[in-house]
Amino acid sequence: MSTQKLIYDGKEKQVFETAAPGEVLIHFKDDITAYDGIKKAEFPGKGALNCEISSLIFEVLSKEGIRTHFIRKAGERDILCRKVKMIPVFFIVRNYIAGTTAAMLGLEDGFKSQNVVYELKYDNEGLGNPLLNRHHAVALGLLTYEELDATLAEVSRLNEVLVELFTRAGIKLIDYRIEMGRADDGSIIVADEISPDTSRMWDAATDEKLDKDRFRFDLGFICDNYRKILDRLKSVI
Amino acid sequence: MSTQKLIYDGKEKQVFETAAPGEVLIHFKDDITAYDGIKKAEFPGKGALNCEISSLIFEVLSKEGIRTHFIRKAGERDILCRKVKMIPVFFIVRNYIAGTTAAMLGLEDGFKSQNVVYELKYDNEGLGNPLLNRHHAVALGLLTYEELDATLAEVSRLNEVLVELFTRAGIKLIDYRIEMGRADDGSIIVADEISPDTSRMWDAATDEKLDKDRFRFDLGFICDNYRKILDRLKSVI
Repeated sequence: MSTQKLIYDGKEKQVFETAAPGEVLIHFKDDITAYDGIKKAEFPGKGALNCEISSLIFEVLSKEGIRTHFIRKAGERDILCRKVKMIPVFFIVRNYIAGTTAAMLGLEDGFKSQNVVYELKYDNEGLGNPLLNRHHAVALGLLTYEELDATLAEVSRLNEVLVELFTRAGIKLIDYRIEMGRADDGSIIVADEISPDTSRMWDAATDEKLDKDRFRFDLGFICDNYRKILDRLKSVI
Repeated sequence: MSTQKLIYDGKEKQVFETAAPGEVLIHFKDDITAYDGIKKAEFPGKGALNCEISSLIFEVLSKEGIRTHFIRKAGERDILCRKVKMIPVFFIVRNYIAGTTAAMLGLEDGFKSQNVVYELKYDNEGLGNPLLNRHHAVALGLLTYEELDATLAEVSRLNEVLVELFTRAGIKLIDYRIEMGRADDGSIIVADEISPDTSRMWDAATDEKLDKDRFRFDLGFICDNYRKILDRLKSVI
């Protein structure tokens, strides 16, 4: 990997070129950040856990016919993926309303919404990643209305698969972030990662937080809880 | 009017009961407020101007088949309206992107969007009237998806009527706020007011601000500019 050209160095992941022009290698770091990078730490083993969890999830999605960038796991903390042009929009899925969104809406933390709440956020750190609605996204030229409709339908299907999976694993999938990219053929597919770093996952019996909120709120045992998620998913896949 | 029961005392309007149970009298004050009521003043004549502008606009909308609460003008600063149960959502229509929304999206003030940008805001001052998307509105139980679709279609039709009207009057209708209410028959109709207090209106030739931004930014000549809007509308209706 050391000879490969680094093409993106993110807070928690790196992306490298590969010999194949249409493929990239994504490397999961042990670094963890929160609050737009203001809070930082490193937890040995975190990258490998996220890599394995995300790989498992992408494999399940692929089996269910959801198109993702994932090709295969390529090392303890590396995945081989299709190269895509990332769309600068975060697609957030909320099965329950928690965190700052619950506060914004005046709802209790962990409110069970009757509908699934989908959100768009502008992936623009300089602007503070603002919440967008579909009209803003179109006005900014990020996606067309047709692309938004198709993408939302795909994310909704994806969510059904994940809710079913996590329910069997005894985990409440509270919310999570999806990023999408444009493939060479112009299609929009799921990219980035789906892991406890990009989601809220609570123990279904106790509501104990198993995800990155353990780092945000200094609850400790980060890797132990990420490991718990991995083990539970493995036990039901 | 003095004998009628006050049922709502707002920052810029009052609502009174009338002898008819299904009707209310809305009284336009000369008070003007901005920044959630932090900045306040009173401009003699402002209420009468807004009352006349809003009445003219509601009459045009009615002629075009848009259902509103407006029955008739009932005095210099009073309108008789159907009594409705207000929905605590602001429907914002942006033909151009201006003000804090332009800053939020990283766009120049007065950016001409290719699409009309519709927004929902939660009418909840305690929460700071946050921006909502349709999923939030449904999760909060404010409206159903079906009601949102129907309402958006109606607001879109309303916007076509107003853009045509204001273009003929030499005014850029930058953005404005609509409030909706549920009538006794369950239908959702346009309520509140449409005036320079609830909109941005710029001179089409010079981009001079003719609306409440004159108060927000201490540009002066508030009533003179509201009068200009009224005269121009009258000249083309």
